[in-house]
Formats: sequence, structure tokens, C-alpha cells
Amino acid sequence: MSERRYTLTIACPDRVGIIAAVSGFIAQHGGFIVEASYHTDLESQRFFMRQEILAASLSPGLTEFHAQFTSMAAEFDMDWRISDSATKKRIVILISKQDHCLNDLLHRWRSGELEVDIPCVISNHEDLRGFVEWHGIPFHCVDMTDKTAAFENIEHLFKQHHGDTMVLARFMQIIPPQLCERYAGRIINIHHSFLPSFAGARPYHQAYQRGVKLIGATCHYVTEDLDAGPIIEQDTVRIDHGDTVEDMVRYGRDIEKTVLARGLRYHVEDRVLVCGNKTIVFR
Amino acid sequence: MSERRYTLTIACPDRVGIIAAVSGFIAQHGGFIVEASYHTDLESQRFFMRQEILAASLSPGLTEFHAQFTSMAAEFDMDWRISDSATKKRIVILISKQDHCLNDLLHRWRSGELEVDIPCVISNHEDLRGFVEWHGIPFHCVDMTDKTAAFENIEHLFKQHHGDTMVLARFMQIIPPQLCERYAGRIINIHHSFLPSFAGARPYHQAYQRGVKLIGATCHYVTEDLDAGPIIEQDTVRIDHGDTVEDMVRYGRDIEKTVLARGLRYHVEDRVLVCGNKTIVFR
Amino acid sequence: MSERRYTLTIACPDRVGIIAAVSGFIAQHGGFIVEASYHTDLESQRFFMRQEILAASLSPGLTEFHAQFTSMAAEFDMDWRISDSATKKRIVILISKQDHCLNDLLHRWRSGELEVDIPCVISNHEDLRGFVEWHGIPFHCVDMTDKTAAFENIEHLFKQHHGDTMVLARFMQIIPPQLCERYAGRIINIHHSFLPSFAGARPYHQAYQRGVKLIGATCHYVTEDLDAGPIIEQDTVRIDHGDTVEDMVRYGRDIEKTVLARGLRYHVEDRVLVCGNKTIVFR
Amino acid sequence: MSERRYTLTIACPDRVGIIAAVSGFIAQHGGFIVEASYHTDLESQRFFMRQEILAASLSPGLTEFHAQFTSMAAEFDMDWRISDSATKKRIVILISKQDHCLNDLLHRWRSGELEVDIPCVISNHEDLRGFVEWHGIPFHCVDMTDKTAAFENIEHLFKQHHGDTMVLARFMQIIPPQLCERYAGRIINIHHSFLPSFAGARPYHQAYQRGVKLIGATCHYVTEDLDAGPIIEQDTVRIDHGDTVEDMVRYGRDIEKTVLARGLRYHVEDRVLVCGNKTIVFR
Repeated sequence: MSERRYTLTIACPDRVGIIAAVSGFIAQHGGFIVEASYHTDLESQRFFMRQEILAASLSPGLTEFHAQFTSMAAEFDMDWRISDSATKKRIVILISKQDHCLNDLLHRWRSGELEVDIPCVISNHEDLRGFVEWHGIPFHCVDMTDKTAAFENIEHLFKQHHGDTMVLARFMQIIPPQLCERYAGRIINIHHSFLPSFAGARPYHQAYQRGVKLIGATCHYVTEDLDAGPIIEQDTVRIDHGDTVEDMVRYGRDIEKTVLARGLRYHVEDRVLVCGNKTIVFR
Repeated sequence: MSERRYTLTIACPDRVGIIAAVSGFIAQHGGFIVEASYHTDLESQRFFMRQEILAASLSPGLTEFHAQFTSMAAEFDMDWRISDSATKKRIVILISKQDHCLNDLLHRWRSGELEVDIPCVISNHEDLRGFVEWHGIPFHCVDMTDKTAAFENIEHLFKQHHGDTMVLARFMQIIPPQLCERYAGRIINIHHSFLPSFAGARPYHQAYQRGVKLIGATCHYVTEDLDAGPIIEQDTVRIDHGDTVEDMVRYGRDIEKTVLARGLRYHVEDRVLVCGNKTIVFR
Repeated sequence: MSERRYTLTIACPDRVGIIAAVSGFIAQHGGFIVEASYHTDLESQRFFMRQEILAASLSPGLTEFHAQFTSMAAEFDMDWRISDSATKKRIVILISKQDHCLNDLLHRWRSGELEVDIPCVISNHEDLRGFVEWHGIPFHCVDMTDKTAAFENIEHLFKQHHGDTMVLARFMQIIPPQLCERYAGRIINIHHSFLPSFAGARPYHQAYQRGVKLIGATCHYVTEDLDAGPIIEQDTVRIDHGDTVEDMVRYGRDIEKTVLARGLRYHVEDRVLVCGNKTIVFR
Repeated sequence: MSERRYTLTIACPDRVGIIAAVSGFIAQHGGFIVEASYHTDLESQRFFMRQEILAASLSPGLTEFHAQFTSMAAEFDMDWRISDSATKKRIVILISKQDHCLNDLLHRWRSGELEVDIPCVISNHEDLRGFVEWHGIPFHCVDMTDKTAAFENIEHLFKQHHGDTMVLARFMQIIPPQLCERYAGRIINIHHSFLPSFAGARPYHQAYQRGVKLIGATCHYVTEDLDAGPIIEQDTVRIDHGDTVEDMVRYGRDIEKTVLARGLRYHVEDRVLVCGNKTIVFR
């Protein structure tokens, strides 16, 4: 585990002097910047930045920083946020019966690679209770026959466990629009195709029918429009004419779990800034 | 250049004993097989095979082989074909103003990597005449104002030059349905997206708008349905939020030319067998 | 799970008629070939082949097949072997403290993707006993202070559990020469570099010092020469100047487990034939 | 072509306030930063940065900027440099008989993708004179029988043509140590292996003998130690047991030219900073 850090992310209209003002402010308070990234979106003319600062180097505490930074933020019309690596994000994982993404995420978590808290796992099936509980993580099974009640229940569990982000690790259920809106930028899905190709159901069957020579996976934020939210990460893998749908499913599992793990890591480390229906990912 | 070879490709209904019959026939005539590939398409239950035989090892000549193989072919209800590496395929290249694919193909041709004849290059612009003629290849400029006349002209030039295959190396014109049908499996296009995503015009602009994290290119046979023919080869390359449409175009050129060169090579070496709207590529 | 199959692998001096003889033999006994692959090694002029046959289609049983095939095998001077998909290979996994490969292999096994038996896991540390035993797999901890005794113990356990193949899933111990020789082609290692670069200890540190722009992993058969045995599978992943050794270790884990899983799968499905210090992998 | 830009690159001991000081200085002079990148090398505790500034936005001219920036540079003990996109770098290309890299670079140059001047091409063979001169570029053939005289001649030609950088595009000759030293960071080579594997002669033969499953290419700065200089860019491509040395050479050509083109582009855009025997590449 690395030293404690603050991560400051900012979005504002682009103009001369933003980097100077922000880095000047940080330097005045002794802040040692370990990583700095910038981007200007040409269409919206908005500026995005991310700074990682060694916590020990910053003379004021976070509260003081907040108070003092607010006036500068107002001057530049900034949307901004600062997070503390000492406060881990709370990730609630939703699954169905397939466990390759779950197995991968839980291993990264228990080995310390993925620095989050996992307050609970929610599923619509009992199958994976034993594996989840072996990790000492509470497992909740939610009956999906009444979808409205089910999602009320899920939201209730999420709040009760003080969740920050929902991760749909092959949950295979469509999230209701109000939930998408209420938790915009906080619900992450892994879709088993290289979007925008093969959105919706049975993407590997669609890929097989079309005869593509590579298949892919896409990690994205969930919005009302099915499989159409801002893309965080994608990857592809080569297949050939000899591969059946079952072979594709098998190859696909390997990229699904890698792509989800990478996308979630970017999210957890505040590397992803949403800009319209696109993302800026400061890797 | 390697030793002279015959390439036998076969498609027929699947059943026991096809490999034994064909390899038995070849062995009886002393044929030394240097490469052999097989595939059964599960949906159509059709069997596909490709054999490369050292020409010098086969006792009968090609004419005799034809005569003798015909009865066995009938017994198994085979579609079959045998080609001779000593007879180079004649490739007519169609271009517009962009020359990265042309430059790449002509280099592979003049270095001896791509073993074909290029009887002529056809374009709707004069721009690349000098470069093509420097290679000693005839260059024909076709006026596209009357599309019907233009494509009659193109077909006439293709026949006059005894062309086997048309390669649309960023030709940017839609081929009329009758031509697609008449030359099915003999017109190859490079499309600058990872199909089926972003078919049609300006795929890099479409990709930019969607915010994908990789872009791609697709080499396919041309059919009546725009950008929907059997896919021969595809590849992708990673981009990020900092890349403009112009950057994508630049990265894209590198995969377009590689994907087209690979796809064309498979076609020229009789490695591609069409099966419905898909291809079997015996690499 | 797919239908029961026999897999026939053959290596012999190259000459005309081998495919015809073997496929003729199989066809005579009604054998339906579902996959067939061939390769001639140009240096040794040896021919290699692999055939997958539907078990139900073959009229004689395996014993009868053995008896009848032997005379033909002698005629062509064949090294050959036939395996039955109904008889699962028995894989003994050796580990140290790192568990990413173990976690990955056990998941593939319990999900049915990796069709093997795992009679036991052996380690020189107690750390992973709980995780292994949760799967119902016996766990043996071997004291390494006396290396000779330790490896005698390991070999004893391997025999006692009727092991076919040892998998060193980041075992971090050097296997004694006699063991390498006795189990040639049956001990698989995953090395955390793109061999032959960075053999031996601390490959990620070596890679960091050299300033390479990609790192890799290699799955290979273990021989007396450290990290120099026949390579089964490799892959690489891009890094950049911002990545520390710790980042490399993290990226590396993802390719280590994928490369090992792929290599082991090829081995288990009898797709790997050793030819000198190289492998033929019929994918 | 994009708008005119200044590119400021800096290396100095790491401490608090560097970004603030530099970006403050730029902002005071109205400088609009379009791209900014930072890196701290943990071993040497040196800080590296690169800023792209819109030329039109900066009130002082370059001369004035130089004068004013010098005192700040001294305060922070900076090695620094500012370049102007309006002054193209002058690239001298050295070749032997193989022309795939040359063909690729000249196409990128004549299409405007590679924004450099190419004052001349130098070769030890006459073969490619026609192709080079067709581009209107002077071609010099240097006799290599007396190596000392040959390299004096090459250096003379380089100076006479006011060259900035030598590009060894498969030149196949060892550069004398004094030249390496005199032009440190200004001679770029493409080596046809994934270094440090297979340095020296005939790397594809070495790769074939070792039985690796991927081959690669490396673009690096030339130093006295053969194939051991700071690596700028690398890539790999998959091969298999069926590929001969000739196939590897063919696949290799495609990555050699791509890797060289990428590495050269980074160099030309002042994205590469050397740090010991490693490079920082601000892509």
C-alpha cells in the first residue's frame, strides 16, 4: 500500500491560468504533487484535471483545504471534489449465477490489490452464498419476481451498507431508470461485447452469427439507455472460424473480468471524469 | 519465393471418410502435402478443407488431376477448385485520393512479399497517377459523374486486364448490386471501423462521438448490403480521451493497411472459403 | 461439456502418405474426425499430427484400436499416443505464497472450464490451506529446509495421488535435475517474464532497470536448464515510464494467470507436442 | 496541420512548487497550455515535464521567453529546452538494401503525417536511389570498405545537410563509439527483436531457434553498447510453430515499421526525455 494521498478532480470552462492557479494554491500549502493530469474537451471547451497530493505534505487538513479552495473554485466556476485514500470506497457487488467476475474481484480485494471495502454482495440466486460468505462478506439474496419491490430492496440494502458504487458483475438484470438517474456515475456494468456492437441479450451469439474475427468486453456507467452509457474501458480478443459460441463465452470471460477490474480500479482511484456521454480516464 | 505448389480447396456435406478419400487420392499420385486444414460448420453441417501439395511431387499434371478427381468430387457432392502457385492472381486496385493502403500494397508487391500481378490501378482522381506509373503499372482515371457509365467502364477495364479480384483500397464509392453479385467473393473492401460498429460514412467521427476506447478496421467481401459482407480479417488499436478525430484517422491508417494486406494475402493464397455470410480462413 | 472424444497424437519421420494411411485407418473403423492438425518440422524432417475422433463413432474400443494401430505405427516408425476425454488428467498444483494463479486455476476447475482432476495442492507455506481446503482439495505443506528430502516428499505425494502433471503456479523453487528428467514434458511452470529476457530471479526488477516498454509471461515445460525449457505459451502487456516495479507486478499477475491457464489447457487437451527444445501447439 | 506551438521540456531535481512556478510563469505571459505532462523518477528523484503552448497566445517571442525563463531555470537547476513547431526537425535516414521502413517513413512524410524535413538519405548500396530521388530527396551512396572513412563521410553529410537526427532504418552497420557519444539522443535505431532478447545479428533466426511464441521490434537511441541504448518504443506480434524464419521476417517487417514510425514521432514532437539508460515518453 502506498502513502496516504488526496486526489483533487476538477472540471470547469477552459481559459488561461487554471493550472497556474491550482498548482500555485497547492504549492502555497506545501502540497507535493505525485501525479497530475489535464485534458481539454474540444467540443464543450471544458477543462478537466486530476492531481494526486501526498497527504502528509499538505499543511492544512482537508476541512481547511475545502474552506480555502471554495473561493478559487467559484472564480473559475469549477465542479470539484477531493478524496482521501485513507477513506476507502464502499463497493456493493451485484451478481447472478456466473461467478468469474466475482471470483476475480474478490481475489483482487483479499490480496490487497483492489483497495476498497465490500460491505455486501447482492444476488438474485443463492448459488454463490457459500463462496461470498467464506470471505466474511454478507450475502443478500433478492427475489426478482416483483421487479419494483426487488429494486427497492436493492436500493435499501445499498443505503443500509453505506455503498458508494454498485458494480454489476454479470447481474443480467435491467436497472430501472430512476435508479440510473439517482446514482448517475455510480453504477458500473460489464457488458460482454465490444459496444456499440451487439448491445442487449446474447452478444456472443450475435457475434457468432455476424462472423466477426475478434470479440470484446465493455465496462461502462449505467444510464437509462441500455448498454449505451459512458464507456470506461474496453478490450478485444482474437477468435477464428473454429470457435463455437461456447469457445467465445470462454475467451470472453477472461476479457470481461480484466476489463471490469481495470475500469473499477480507474473509478475507485478517481481517474474517471464523465463528460457528456464520454469519459476522460486519467491513467 | 517458395517451391511451386497446387492448392486444393473443397466444400461438401460432412460425413465420415472425406479426409481419407482425398488424402488417399493425393497419396496414390505421389502428392506431398505441405499444409492441410479442415473445418466443419456446425450449422450447415458442411465440411471445408484446404490442401497445399508440392507441384513437383504430383505425378499427373493439373489437367489429368482434374479429370481423375471429378468422379470422386461428384461422389461426395464437392464444390472444389485447384490453383497453381505458378499462375499469379491478377489484382485490380481501386482507389480515391487516400494512398496509405495503395502505398502499402505496392511496396509489398514490388518487394515480392505479395505474389500477384497488378495489371492496373483505377481511380476517380488523377492525384496518384505519378506514383502508380513510377511502378510501371497502368493507371486509369474514371469520371464518376455518371455512376452507371463509370461502373460499366470499371468492369470493362477489369475484364480487359483479365482481372481476378478487385481490391477497394479506400475507394469510397458504393459498388452497384449487379457488380457485387457478378463478382461475389472477388471484390475485397477495407472499411475503417470494427464492423458491425460504425458502418457507412465517417466511422471515425461516429467512434469519436460514442467515446469508444479502441478503434478498428475490417477487411470483407463486398455484397449488396453496405459494409455487411463476409468478414475476412479485423483488428483494433487502443485510443484514449486525448485523441481527436484526426488522431484516430492517423492510428486508423496503420490498422487499415495491415488488415487489408493480411486479408488480401489470405484471399490470394486461397485460404478464405465463404460459408453463408461468414468466412473460414485457414491461416 | 462436449461429447466424449479420443485424441490421437503422432510424431514420425516425414514422407508421402502418412495422412492418407492414418485417416484411412480411422475411416475404416467408422471414426468421425472432429479436429485434425498437421505440422512438419523442417529442421528434423519430422511430421506431427493430432486427430480428435468422436468416441461413439469408432467401432472398436480403445484396446482393440491399440492392437490394430500398432502394426501401422511400426511401419511409419511412429511415436504415438491416444487419450480418452472420459479419463481426466490428474494435475498436482505446487504453490508458494502468491495465490493469483492458484485462485484462477481453481475457479476454472470448479466452474467446469478446466476439465481435470486436482488430487492435491502442495505448498511450502501454510498460508493458502484454508482456501484450498474450502474447495475440498487436500493440501500438503512441505518443509523446504532439507531440499533433497522435500523433493522426495513432493515426488512421493505426486505418485501417491496418481498425478499426471505438476503445475508450478508460482512455486519459486528450483526443481532438481533428476525430477526434471524423470517427468520431462510433465512439469509446467509459469515464469513472470517474456523469456528468454529476464530469466532467473526478480524479472520485474530486471525489466524495470532495462526500461522495456512491455512486460510478459511465459508458460514452459521445466528442464534442467533454469527457465530454458520448451515454451508452450507467452504474452505481453504494455507498460510505461510511470509504472513502478509494483505496478509491473500487478499487471504481470494478470498475464501470468492467463498465460498459465492457456498453456495448461493446451497440455491437458494433448495439443502440445515437444520437438527438441520447442513445442508444436495445435490450437 | 495543427496550430503553431512551442514545446517546453524540463528536467530538474524534484521539489515542491515546480509545476506552480512554471505554469505561473507561462500564465503571466498569457500562454495557453494545450498539453501538459509530468513525471518523477523515483530512483534519481529527478522531475521531468513537458508543456505544449499555443504560440499565438504567448506575448513575448521565443528570444524574450529564453531571456526571462533563464533565471527561473537556474533557481530550480533545470535542464530545459523550448522548440517551435514552425521549425521542422531535419531527419537524415540511413538505409541498406531493405526498404520497408524507408517506404513507410517516406509515405508518412509525403502525406504530411510526419512533419519533418528529410534533407537526404544515405545508403551503402545504390539499390534504392531511384525510389528516394522520385521523392525529390538527395541520395548519397557511401562506400563502406574503409569504415573509418565511411563514417567520417556520413558525419560530414549529416553536418552539411544540417541534420538534427539520424534514423537507422535497417542500416545494418555498427556506429562507431565517438559518433554515438557526439550525437547522444540523436541517433535512432530500429532493432528487429524485442530487446533485451536477441540482440546482435540475425534475431529472427535466434527467435526461431528458441521457439518463442511472439516476436518483436524495438526502437531505441544508439549508444556505444550494441542494442543496449535507451528504449523508446517496442511491440510484439504472435507467431506459431508453423511459421518459418521467412514468415517471421515478414511479420517482423510490419512491426518494425510501425514501431520505428511511432518512436520517431515521439522524438520529433519532443515527447522523449532520456533518464539514465531509460526514457520517459510523454504520449
